Amino acid sequence: MRTHYCGLVNEALIDQTVTLCGWVNTIRLQAHVAFVDLRDHEGVAQVVIERDNAAAFAIAGEIGNEYCLRVTGTLRRRLAANDKLKTGTVELLADTVEILNAAKDLPFALHENPNEDMRMTYRYLDLRRPEMQAMMRKRTRLVQTLRRYLDERGFQDIETPILTKATPEGARDYLVPSRVHPGQFYALPQSPQLFKQILMMAGFDRYYQIARCFRDEDLRADRQPEFTQLDMEFAFVEEKDVQGMVEELIRHVFREVQGVELDASFPRMTWAEAMRRFGSDKPDLRIALELVDVAEALKGVEFKVFAEPANDPAGRVAALRVPGAAALSRKDIDGLAEYVARYGAKGLAWIKVEDRARGREGVSSPVAKFLDDAALAAVLDATGAQSGDIVFVGAGRWKTVTDFMGALRLKVGKDRGLVEEGWKPLWVTDFPMFEYDEDEQRYVALHHPFTAPKIDDIADLKSHAATAVSRGYDMVLNGNEIGGGSIRIHRPEMQSAVFGLLGIGAEEAEAKFGFLLKALKFGAPPHGGIAFGIDRIAALMAGTESIRDVIAFPKTTSAQDLMTDAPSMVSDAQLKELHVRVAGGEAVG
Amino acid sequence: MRTHYCGLVNEALIDQTVTLCGWVNTIRLQAHVAFVDLRDHEGVAQVVIERDNAAAFAIAGEIGNEYCLRVTGTLRRRLAANDKLKTGTVELLADTVEILNAAKDLPFALHENPNEDMRMTYRYLDLRRPEMQAMMRKRTRLVQTLRRYLDERGFQDIETPILTKATPEGARDYLVPSRVHPGQFYALPQSPQLFKQILMMAGFDRYYQIARCFRDEDLRADRQPEFTQLDMEFAFVEEKDVQGMVEELIRHVFREVQGVELDASFPRMTWAEAMRRFGSDKPDLRIALELVDVAEALKGVEFKVFAEPANDPAGRVAALRVPGAAALSRKDIDGLAEYVARYGAKGLAWIKVEDRARGREGVSSPVAKFLDDAALAAVLDATGAQSGDIVFVGAGRWKTVTDFMGALRLKVGKDRGLVEEGWKPLWVTDFPMFEYDEDEQRYVALHHPFTAPKIDDIADLKSHAATAVSRGYDMVLNGNEIGGGSIRIHRPEMQSAVFGLLGIGAEEAEAKFGFLLKALKFGAPPHGGIAFGIDRIAALMAGTESIRDVIAFPKTTSAQDLMTDAPSMVSDAQLKELHVRVAGGEAVG
Repeated sequence: MRTHYCGLVNEALIDQTVTLCGWVNTIRLQAHVAFVDLRDHEGVAQVVIERDNAAAFAIAGEIGNEYCLRVTGTLRRRLAANDKLKTGTVELLADTVEILNAAKDLPFALHENPNEDMRMTYRYLDLRRPEMQAMMRKRTRLVQTLRRYLDERGFQDIETPILTKATPEGARDYLVPSRVHPGQFYALPQSPQLFKQILMMAGFDRYYQIARCFRDEDLRADRQPEFTQLDMEFAFVEEKDVQGMVEELIRHVFREVQGVELDASFPRMTWAEAMRRFGSDKPDLRIALELVDVAEALKGVEFKVFAEPANDPAGRVAALRVPGAAALSRKDIDGLAEYVARYGAKGLAWIKVEDRARGREGVSSPVAKFLDDAALAAVLDATGAQSGDIVFVGAGRWKTVTDFMGALRLKVGKDRGLVEEGWKPLWVTDFPMFEYDEDEQRYVALHHPFTAPKIDDIADLKSHAATAVSRGYDMVLNGNEIGGGSIRIHRPEMQSAVFGLLGIGAEEAEAKFGFLLKALKFGAPPHGGIAFGIDRIAALMAGTESIRDVIAFPKTTSAQDLMTDAPSMVSDAQLKELHVRVAGGEAVG
Repeated sequence: MRTHYCGLVNEALIDQTVTLCGWVNTIRLQAHVAFVDLRDHEGVAQVVIERDNAAAFAIAGEIGNEYCLRVTGTLRRRLAANDKLKTGTVELLADTVEILNAAKDLPFALHENPNEDMRMTYRYLDLRRPEMQAMMRKRTRLVQTLRRYLDERGFQDIETPILTKATPEGARDYLVPSRVHPGQFYALPQSPQLFKQILMMAGFDRYYQIARCFRDEDLRADRQPEFTQLDMEFAFVEEKDVQGMVEELIRHVFREVQGVELDASFPRMTWAEAMRRFGSDKPDLRIALELVDVAEALKGVEFKVFAEPANDPAGRVAALRVPGAAALSRKDIDGLAEYVARYGAKGLAWIKVEDRARGREGVSSPVAKFLDDAALAAVLDATGAQSGDIVFVGAGRWKTVTDFMGALRLKVGKDRGLVEEGWKPLWVTDFPMFEYDEDEQRYVALHHPFTAPKIDDIADLKSHAATAVSRGYDMVLNGNEIGGGSIRIHRPEMQSAVFGLLGIGAEEAEAKFGFLLKALKFGAPPHGGIAFGIDRIAALMAGTESIRDVIAFPKTTSAQDLMTDAPSMVSDAQLKELHVRVAGGEAVG
């Protein structure tokens, strides 16, 4: 239907007959001539329709933005080149113009930034915008590059089921009623975790899959009910094997897709260190600010807000020095206190260092009066505070302080432009094996219940569950957990023991994970793997905050597809075939 | 954990220290030495454990088949090479042997061909079998090769939603209750059809996806509730563009994966011709047998079984000559008659040609007596029957005769070894646009309701609906429909008209396909595409009848996963959150 793409015509084609197809980006109708910017996925070309060409000029009078056209004519040099266009030195003098399809008035102009609901409802228009095309292309290149790298290294791309077994662990499952087996349900997979482990037991050596996963969770801006991960698993490996291989993979895709050379070896940090220094298990290392523990210096002060957590093994007192921020206004500081309150902070102490040399006289702080000279000096020394700095101090329960001081670090870092350009990857390792869930009064798995503990002895693990460390690892990039994995449990006795520690009794374990426990008994190999969040990595590469910009048809935060209007009502006949009915009268959502 | 793969050790490594990991394929324990065939995904290596090595020899006494081992030792030349093994000239003299995991007694021996249920229940053992490993690898290579080809040609791999809108058309949907929107449901896609069309309207030019699709149908041996297709769509194309491109793609993958050079240009055949000559819309051209219409010769005979359909425009009388089959026994022929009865045949007439030169005297046939000489000769002439042949004649309604004579052609062709070796692809085109459904008393779409008719005029289409031909095309290979596609409707008025002809009223069309009708009004481009069945193509390439052999975790014909035991019961609490309950007391199945 066409000889060339709009965005690719060039001077080499001058004087040739060219047929282009595309959409009317803009049209300017003048008395004797009409100019149409015709757009396709490659870019824009100018089409000129002269009044002398009566048939074509008449058509030019009919068309509007986003009409779909086919134009044949002769390519010629433009009198005045348009530097902003790739094709700006040439134009197509139309011979024939054909309307392939008309377009109604648009609900929004493509060069505007329409609101999110409009974008979702008219996604086919939203996606025509060149910036959306570019972001989607970036995602395609990312996935292509990942695949090619893995294909060349002997990984087998194996599909695992979408209609699978409900194993409520972690997030909520999406369920699918069975027509053939009344009262029974499939679940959509939260990840291919158990299938990929089974593949290792089935003798496959290196597996990957770009896998769709599903979690029926209340959505935040950066979550989708269905999402995509690069899922990988390796037989006969230890941590360093997996980490080495996937580090090289990530370096490769950043080099190929982004033109960026990442660190030759990613720094490694234990979870404990990450929480201590950055108040986060996914520290953004582009921000140089660090938390400093100052409990030691404050154990003896009378001020209970500091002294109590300083003396409590479950407490924490952490300081954050922000260089050059002594000029922060009271309003700024109140804003930060409000911000950290969302993370559970009951208050936010601060010390402005106006003149470090003058000691107590040189600071302005609502809490300085509660600190003796030694304590004040110790806090300032510990943080390395200089004149002109501000030091924030958070105190309370270890988890709360860590969280809100970590959040404060990010907030202040971003607000004050302290985020370095570039890419800062790292590994976080040595996660706690279990986390005690106060509500449920039991241990829950920090990664998932198939993660191997570092302790290989079952009795030893049972007696040190609270402090046991797992063989899990996360890859973190610029404050995002982009990948997470672990060495898995491959001995059936250890798997049963971990289920037991998680409060999953033998009967429940059998019902939910019987096939795994059975499979482990037939010579399961040591194995481990990792999964990367493709949506997030694509968004990072595309330079957008929202993963919705790199998903062709995303859902809203209430899990709706506004374009197709899903979910929607279905007929009673359909439900009857599936042996379910809507539970009427019950509370809504 | 290892230095080499078992299947890849070779003479270049002799005298080197080698560590292998794998499974015990066989073990022979003798008085002074143990021989272990250790297997991994690359193959098998012989490990020798000598009694002198007391620690290792003690371990050898403990291990059984499918134990998972790590062995370190020195590679040496074998005294007597084993020609059957790739690694047969070398063996590993064990220094240390470590049991990585024990294996219980196996439910079946891997070198046997266990029954299907056992294979599914212990899929991790079934997949360890080298023939399963090879078939799964073939699938991986197929998919890799497809992707690479398309990536290099500017196709964009774009993911479309799995949680989407219920649009009951064609097969039954799998439904997913929404937690957030009580009483509403998502559907799993039967194909990404509408999304890929929307992508064309969104300005993407060439799309592909290896897409998971779902159909809640009663399963036959070659159907799965979830299956995989290579889904493609192109903007600004006509039939020849799509066909040319994908023919090249299929030739490429057969060359690369199978080492086979397919026809330089696939033959094209209209649907009408395929039905007439082969009694099938997916003719297996490896079988040279053809149906011949003989109604003309039989219009005047008194035998009503032939004369009535011969004179009825809705009837058909078709003959099939089978060369050299005059010696078929009465029992053989009865068997064939029984076989075609399953396809609706009320009887199967036959004429054995013992001596063609002797006319009526030279044939043996229960129906010859009802035919005059001219009619008998005309039938034999039309089929080109020679001495020693048999000619079958089927008569009745056009559709029934076409179906059962097509089935007979395949059956006889296979039974008599008339299936040529090799690969016979073709295009079938010019399908009827609509098929009249007697039960529902309305037209249904032969492809799907988005397929463009060849007639571009709406009034014309409406007045010729019964005979209208679509712009659909199927790629057929060795009697399998491996791909199907069409040029789509891109004008909103035509789409509405086709919905109307299919009995989908304006209101219903709006409720189900409103978004499509709306999208078509914003300058939708002409577009078309195709989808290929990956499971079937992989099975063909792997030389297996069953697509289950190229799916890692397939379901049974009652849609169960015997390994994980899905579907299964879920808790009332889960269902309550989803606002559904099981409709108790209603009939099962």
